[in-house]
Amino acid sequence: MEDLIEGAVAKVVKGMQNKGGLKQVYLVGCGGSYGAFFPAKVFIETESKSLGCHLYSSNEFLHMPSAGVNENAIVIACSHTGNTPETVEVARTCKRKGISIIGITYNKESELAQACDSVLTYTFGDDRDVEYEKPLVELKLAAEILRCTEGYERYTEFMEGCHKIHGIVQKSKKSVEGRALKFAKEYAKDTFIVTLASGAAWGAAYMESICIFMEMQWIASPAIHTGEFFHGPFEVIEKDTPYILLVSAGKTRQLDERAKSFLEKYGSRGEILDALELGLADIDASVIDYFNHSLFFNTLSVFNKKLAEERHHPLSVRRYMYKVPY
Amino acid sequence: MEDLIEGAVAKVVKGMQNKGGLKQVYLVGCGGSYGAFFPAKVFIETESKSLGCHLYSSNEFLHMPSAGVNENAIVIACSHTGNTPETVEVARTCKRKGISIIGITYNKESELAQACDSVLTYTFGDDRDVEYEKPLVELKLAAEILRCTEGYERYTEFMEGCHKIHGIVQKSKKSVEGRALKFAKEYAKDTFIVTLASGAAWGAAYMESICIFMEMQWIASPAIHTGEFFHGPFEVIEKDTPYILLVSAGKTRQLDERAKSFLEKYGSRGEILDALELGLADIDASVIDYFNHSLFFNTLSVFNKKLAEERHHPLSVRRYMYKVPY
Repeated sequence: MEDLIEGAVAKVVKGMQNKGGLKQVYLVGCGGSYGAFFPAKVFIETESKSLGCHLYSSNEFLHMPSAGVNENAIVIACSHTGNTPETVEVARTCKRKGISIIGITYNKESELAQACDSVLTYTFGDDRDVEYEKPLVELKLAAEILRCTEGYERYTEFMEGCHKIHGIVQKSKKSVEGRALKFAKEYAKDTFIVTLASGAAWGAAYMESICIFMEMQWIASPAIHTGEFFHGPFEVIEKDTPYILLVSAGKTRQLDERAKSFLEKYGSRGEILDALELGLADIDASVIDYFNHSLFFNTLSVFNKKLAEERHHPLSVRRYMYKVPY
Repeated sequence: MEDLIEGAVAKVVKGMQNKGGLKQVYLVGCGGSYGAFFPAKVFIETESKSLGCHLYSSNEFLHMPSAGVNENAIVIACSHTGNTPETVEVARTCKRKGISIIGITYNKESELAQACDSVLTYTFGDDRDVEYEKPLVELKLAAEILRCTEGYERYTEFMEGCHKIHGIVQKSKKSVEGRALKFAKEYAKDTFIVTLASGAAWGAAYMESICIFMEMQWIASPAIHTGEFFHGPFEVIEKDTPYILLVSAGKTRQLDERAKSFLEKYGSRGEILDALELGLADIDASVIDYFNHSLFFNTLSVFNKKLAEERHHPLSVRRYMYKVPY
């Protein structure tokens, strides 16, 4: 996989050498594929001295084209099935215009894969190796882009983090089994749950809200950035308002801890997942931020399964998706 | 005001002439001041061939510093009172490090104003001129940044739009008075409302959700991008789920219309505000997208006032903000 990422990035960067070099990175996807881009987005925005980084929902990318999508840009488009119509169209549009396009999909035979210059696939399912699942492949791609352009001093620590995350996640998932069952029983009848996070982990909160609670459990759920919480949304919190707070390890931890203090005082029905308690400190402090997303996303899957069982509402049930025209 | 904007941008751009020029624009604020940046953000992302554009909640900007905040960057920090602690700290940090910083605030005597290289103020209150309120000042600043760096071909049409928006908003507000009362009576007892929008208008949906519904009315409200709606969140819609859909004029209209068709079929309790019906087409098609936010934000204020009256819950009531330590 590392070879494929290296090859894909080298091809793009080399191709731009005589045209002013790489300037803009566009991350494009929908739903879960949009949310999974947060580690890569936060990585580039934090580490790069000169690269612009833009995260788009596919249909907005198509309809509101950016003038920055030009010979100095790379577009990274992701779709799990590889057949999401608007994401496939993103790739085809780029290809037609000669824009560098890398596809990320689970299905290497898909339309997305066929439409891209390079394709990276990832592991998926209960037995997956977290190091090679979607957000990590995208994160590695971001790190490789930085390494090949400006250079990345923490590359060794970063790759060590990548090698460690699977083991950390497995332990974390095991450690929350009891809590997850309690959570499921407590929240089975709620119709509204707030999720909160910051940094790369905000992507995990967003995915929990839109893909799990709203899509798979039909529970209303705003995802709130802990930096924004005190500038409006915290007024919605009552003693019995249910919430899930993801307390990251790393630079934005203080934002999450501020929300934690408030929620513990004014709320009483929350689930607080703390990345340090879940073992993330095993990763070097200089790169730890980017791994919060994978830790939380995977650990939350234990809670989601129990919640679905307790509510007798399987995660696979839909009323509209793939069932009615839209 | 235009002179001040021109002066502030000229100073920054001139100062970078021998250092490689302006490369990155950072928009930084919290809550309403975060949401109001969307027109400027979408403008730069759409129109610029080379500028990176980053929108940060102030505390994340502080705690997770970006390597791109350097001698080739401009930071634009906004706080209504000019005293939001984390936003004031953003300005002070930039000043200390020699980063170009422009402040935007209603209060020109505030700490933010004192900490910035240049300060722009804006109009506020019931009698305000929409052309000179916060999102428009920021949008004009974005257009001036583009004009002074790459050049902006549609500057004339853009400024014409700026001159027209106040009149359009006044007519629009008047036209919805009857609807707003009906809306207030219909939704007075709801505890959950979904907001939906795309493009620059997504900022208006975000502000409606976090500042009005959650902060001022204590109603749970996820803001959903219409491009994301069909990739998860639409599953939460039942026949009686209340929603506000903002149908923009311009390039992303098709995304909103797709949501509209679905919501009209599967929902029955929605308020649909259509920018074309509200008169936005008076602005040139090449720049119309950037004005959706101001039209919707101001038109929604009519609905918000009626809703607050009907619920006997004034928009000024808080339980935590400025009342308890947090």
